[in-house]
Amino acid sequence: MDAARIDQLIDVYRGGLLDDTIPFWMRHGEDRQLGGIMTCLDRDGAVLDTDKGVWQQGRFAWVLGHLYNTVERRPEWLSAVTHTVGFIERHCIDDDGRMFFHVTRDGRPIRKRRYAFSEAFAAMAFGEHAQATGSDRSRAMAERLYGVFDTHVPSPPKWCSTRPMKSLAKPMIQIVVCQRLRESIGLAGASAHIDRAIAEIRRDFMKPDLRCCMENVGPGGEIVDHLDGRLLNPGHAIEGAWFMMEEGRRRDEPEYVRAGLDILDWMWERGWDQQHGGLFYFRDIDGRPVSEYWHDMKFWWPHNEAIIATLLAYQLTGDRAYARMHATVHDYAYALFPDRECGDWFGYFHRDGRLSSPVKGNLFKGCFHVPRQQLECWRIAREIRQGRVGRFPK
Amino acid sequence: MDAARIDQLIDVYRGGLLDDTIPFWMRHGEDRQLGGIMTCLDRDGAVLDTDKGVWQQGRFAWVLGHLYNTVERRPEWLSAVTHTVGFIERHCIDDDGRMFFHVTRDGRPIRKRRYAFSEAFAAMAFGEHAQATGSDRSRAMAERLYGVFDTHVPSPPKWCSTRPMKSLAKPMIQIVVCQRLRESIGLAGASAHIDRAIAEIRRDFMKPDLRCCMENVGPGGEIVDHLDGRLLNPGHAIEGAWFMMEEGRRRDEPEYVRAGLDILDWMWERGWDQQHGGLFYFRDIDGRPVSEYWHDMKFWWPHNEAIIATLLAYQLTGDRAYARMHATVHDYAYALFPDRECGDWFGYFHRDGRLSSPVKGNLFKGCFHVPRQQLECWRIAREIRQGRVGRFPK
Repeated sequence: MDAARIDQLIDVYRGGLLDDTIPFWMRHGEDRQLGGIMTCLDRDGAVLDTDKGVWQQGRFAWVLGHLYNTVERRPEWLSAVTHTVGFIERHCIDDDGRMFFHVTRDGRPIRKRRYAFSEAFAAMAFGEHAQATGSDRSRAMAERLYGVFDTHVPSPPKWCSTRPMKSLAKPMIQIVVCQRLRESIGLAGASAHIDRAIAEIRRDFMKPDLRCCMENVGPGGEIVDHLDGRLLNPGHAIEGAWFMMEEGRRRDEPEYVRAGLDILDWMWERGWDQQHGGLFYFRDIDGRPVSEYWHDMKFWWPHNEAIIATLLAYQLTGDRAYARMHATVHDYAYALFPDRECGDWFGYFHRDGRLSSPVKGNLFKGCFHVPRQQLECWRIAREIRQGRVGRFPK
Repeated sequence: MDAARIDQLIDVYRGGLLDDTIPFWMRHGEDRQLGGIMTCLDRDGAVLDTDKGVWQQGRFAWVLGHLYNTVERRPEWLSAVTHTVGFIERHCIDDDGRMFFHVTRDGRPIRKRRYAFSEAFAAMAFGEHAQATGSDRSRAMAERLYGVFDTHVPSPPKWCSTRPMKSLAKPMIQIVVCQRLRESIGLAGASAHIDRAIAEIRRDFMKPDLRCCMENVGPGGEIVDHLDGRLLNPGHAIEGAWFMMEEGRRRDEPEYVRAGLDILDWMWERGWDQQHGGLFYFRDIDGRPVSEYWHDMKFWWPHNEAIIATLLAYQLTGDRAYARMHATVHDYAYALFPDRECGDWFGYFHRDGRLSSPVKGNLFKGCFHVPRQQLECWRIAREIRQGRVGRFPK
């Protein structure tokens, strides 16, 4: 990577974050009246639905808090964090301590799901708030909600007991939540929890003989030869790959870097669309059809994850093959997803790059994957510019 | 409609049913070893997953039983019905009397859902079996399962109590299940239940001022101004439209015909893709974006329903506008969906007619919508050929 390209990347990531994505969501989504954020927005930021997704409350507060704690202490960022964690605490937690998934604008519950990802994202948000303000209450909330996520067993179970399966999502998200809480509040035991999660992924989900990382496996890592069991989610696995590389970098653990690189290599082979470019949403392990209707669509977030993973892989290894992979996915994504007229990124394209939906957000797309990528890549690109490249040669 | 066109339609519908669709599913899907049918099939009929969807067991047995009872008493059709209702009775009913949604090939439960549509389709299947064989046991099963469907309240509720909604699916499916059970076993009270379901649709789901039939409304028919509440499902409403027209025809009730025609007119205006042809899957009542990723795809079944509804509308009214609508959707669908190489219909196309997935079936597509359309339209076309047109002029 030459210096001019690196400088250009730094501009794109920093400018996208501070001058586009964050202002878009604070202008159109932030609910200064009732707290939190509305993320069901049309292309121009018009509110399509005032309901609030609980994942998106925690994610928004985490992003703003992380910016406040690591980039600049802007009062408007801290204000957004404070009123969002307040909204979460007042409205998004049920009497049993578990969290809702979907609430009205004023915080009345619409839906509670059997999973505990609302708790994971909220824990990250309270952690940043505790770091920013020194609040013991927010620290305690972060610890308690992490504990709910850590020990949660989905209830009632979605599946009968005939053929139990487990998903990559739990250990993968556990890695990142522990990384963030270790940094924000020094969560006790975080590194041990991360080690356990990475060990589970390496033992049960990574299949070196098949060159892939599974999305769902049996309790002991068995491949379940049915539609769900054969499913691959390249963007999801690549997200986990950079969490593992990042842990290797922090802990100086080449094995973690190596495992992350393997997943990136495998899932790039599996997931990159040679015909139209971009990452498929789902693939079958044997190349047979998958059942989900949006299997061949190009969603925004797998590209955010792949842009981070490839840039980090280049930084850690110095291997120019990763610089080329990064250029491929960066150039593809930045030609397609950013909305240069109304701001932020589109989320949903057909396989061939035709727009499927112009929305900027819904219960699943909010202020999270795009700004996290911009922030991570801004940092990584600056370190590359400083020559900090190749600490873990392949 | 001239006689040549009608004769051609009769050939297409009859030939498609008896020489293509039914043989395809009996050859590739029917499980002569363990009973029932496997519907997760690749384009060429290869089994992608041996698991069995419970909806598809009831639907397959209903189709074959209805053929046996109304077309021809072929022993292989009765055999398929008998071993499929046997599989359902042995394996698809839980200890609490409710049915599963998804079982293994040998009938161990994989998933039970909170809805009771498995029960509705199975009731129809047992009804045909009772009619074909005189079995009191199957008659009693049909009555019991219909009772479960009729009185079922989804449990645990998917939504919190903040903003209750009800769906068109329940009254719509109630009409057709009662029609089928009235015919097969003379279900007591069937016509009264149908009257109640049609009254609910007319009162709560039909919105003449907006010219649409809603998919989800509040308990009193209120439009819920959120993403789910604004959703329109044109194929689903058009399916309900022909159930209502059919009831009007049977009962000589012009108001039911009229209501069905209104829904057909409105949802055709809302759902037909003027640019690429075909029916969209979802539309927003205000033309704003909808949240489901497959909103603009062209699925097979809305076209089956629209082919029936438009042909029946023409027969009942004699209005040539409906003959033109029928030609439009028939010609579009028959150019796109039938797989002339491997048999039966493809299910999943992108908006512009590019194939999205080559599968012939999964837990949702099996041996049901296509053969039901072929059978219904074969019968309607023969009646049109006999001059039985225009009993309910507009």
